[in-house]
Amino acid sequence: MSAAVSVVALSGGIGGAKLALGLYHTLPPNSLMVVCNTGDDFEHLGLSISPDLDTVLYTLAGVANPATGWGRAGETWSFMQALGQLGGETWFRLGDADLATHVERTRRLAAGEGLSAISDDFRTRLAVRARLVPMCDEPVRTMVHTYDGILPFQRYFVERRCAPKVSGFEFHGANEARPTPSLREALASERLEAVVICPSNPFISIDPILAVSGMRAAIAACRAPVVAVAPIIGGRAVKGPTAKMMAELGIPASARAVAEHYGGLLDGFVLDAADADQTRVIDVPCLATRTLMESEDDKRTLAAGVLAFARRIGETTR
Amino acid sequence: MSAAVSVVALSGGIGGAKLALGLYHTLPPNSLMVVCNTGDDFEHLGLSISPDLDTVLYTLAGVANPATGWGRAGETWSFMQALGQLGGETWFRLGDADLATHVERTRRLAAGEGLSAISDDFRTRLAVRARLVPMCDEPVRTMVHTYDGILPFQRYFVERRCAPKVSGFEFHGANEARPTPSLREALASERLEAVVICPSNPFISIDPILAVSGMRAAIAACRAPVVAVAPIIGGRAVKGPTAKMMAELGIPASARAVAEHYGGLLDGFVLDAADADQTRVIDVPCLATRTLMESEDDKRTLAAGVLAFARRIGETTR
Repeated sequence: MSAAVSVVALSGGIGGAKLALGLYHTLPPNSLMVVCNTGDDFEHLGLSISPDLDTVLYTLAGVANPATGWGRAGETWSFMQALGQLGGETWFRLGDADLATHVERTRRLAAGEGLSAISDDFRTRLAVRARLVPMCDEPVRTMVHTYDGILPFQRYFVERRCAPKVSGFEFHGANEARPTPSLREALASERLEAVVICPSNPFISIDPILAVSGMRAAIAACRAPVVAVAPIIGGRAVKGPTAKMMAELGIPASARAVAEHYGGLLDGFVLDAADADQTRVIDVPCLATRTLMESEDDKRTLAAGVLAFARRIGETTR
Repeated sequence: MSAAVSVVALSGGIGGAKLALGLYHTLPPNSLMVVCNTGDDFEHLGLSISPDLDTVLYTLAGVANPATGWGRAGETWSFMQALGQLGGETWFRLGDADLATHVERTRRLAAGEGLSAISDDFRTRLAVRARLVPMCDEPVRTMVHTYDGILPFQRYFVERRCAPKVSGFEFHGANEARPTPSLREALASERLEAVVICPSNPFISIDPILAVSGMRAAIAACRAPVVAVAPIIGGRAVKGPTAKMMAELGIPASARAVAEHYGGLLDGFVLDAADADQTRVIDVPCLATRTLMESEDDKRTLAAGVLAFARRIGETTR
């Protein structure tokens, strides 16, 4: 099936999943591959949790909680309540239905299956007609360097609510990891038409993917244009700590700075119409359009715009 | 606190838990110790499950499901439903709140804590003012010999619904196991007034407890009378496969046969008034009374009767 993949999208969680959903609804069935960051993955309560994979899975399957963007719609919370009664850790919220994903994934990993095989089976069972792959099968763990010390990602992100000031990031295990075979195949394919970097946080969602050994080279070598969508609009992040992080890192919180962060990897850059003036100082072709995705329509319209933009780049450069 | 234990009750799941609850409500706080069968324990979905411990825990904590006797009241089932969607095994039903017990126990066992320490913490957190101890900290696994082959207990009991005809039982690991220290202490105590064998299945609930190395000797050596309550009334089991098993094993399904099964361990035997005629052929002191526990009142009345009976035996024999 991977032979049919024409678009590869790199995604973190909620923000990336929105554009991934737009792409999913715009492209023919089975032609999209979403590559998920697994630097956020962690072991909690003895379970292997992959927050970004699950957010994209639930989003594409149409079972995501629309209010939060993470977790499942119509979720119940009996587990967390009972866990609290027993003195268990409740800082990371796990819904009852969501828990099935973690328990079953943990069981299958322990039985020797790879995360990519498990993820492919889960998306098939939830009738998702897109490939859904982790960036690698090896464990990679994002460590956040802060002025309060080095924190594992979820401790920083969920428990500390991104409060500590960051100074940098490390992706433990990335050097030993390799892009999953299906991803390598898709990137090397003659049929590939676009690589889309979703409007996810560049530092904690996209950089872990790019840190996987051989990933950046495989993306740079692919025949299709690489197009990123800015997660910053008018100097602010739509959601999450992107702008706060940029300020803490001494980088201007601007779309342009995101384009510069990805550097030579990009063949095109999509930013919000509000930031159209920055296109003059970005040295790749730019598309200024509405990037805020509030409705399902917004997601499809942006996805279609990004794909058309990539196609134009592909036509002019090859 | 174990110094204050005056009654030790041996229990399996649902039937045993009923009398345990009666004893709990009859005795002063912190004077009851319930010893639970862990031969039913198993690993499922990567979780360590202790069905009898949990049934007794939930029953004494007042959170048991009154309709089923197992699991928690007001339970939700989102986990099982989602697990089924993902292709996971659903033959063993785990409610969402119940799952917290298994996840937290599994996590703590993996961290190196013993089952008895974890069980004691759980009952404390659920405000149970009775000791609740597994028969041992070592894993013991009941294997059911059937005419369809040897089956792990839960495969026989839940998945096969006790349909295969049994020929015997094995308790893997029992030789290597020892009664938990708090149980040994309680059995050796001068304050012990009674050991009550609850009306649980003798073969699959009580025999695994007695099979633990040193258990039978510690019970036989204790200063208090040992009194069993028959799980058979008028030749039928109140619940579960006891009578069916006895028939398959070539043993008459009678209260008398249960008394003979426990043999020299007993100082007294409690059977239903319907079986009062059997007292003539049972060679330990007998109490014929109502043993069916339908209401909370039934449980307390039987518990009080059993304790008074044990006290009379203790007074006459010492």
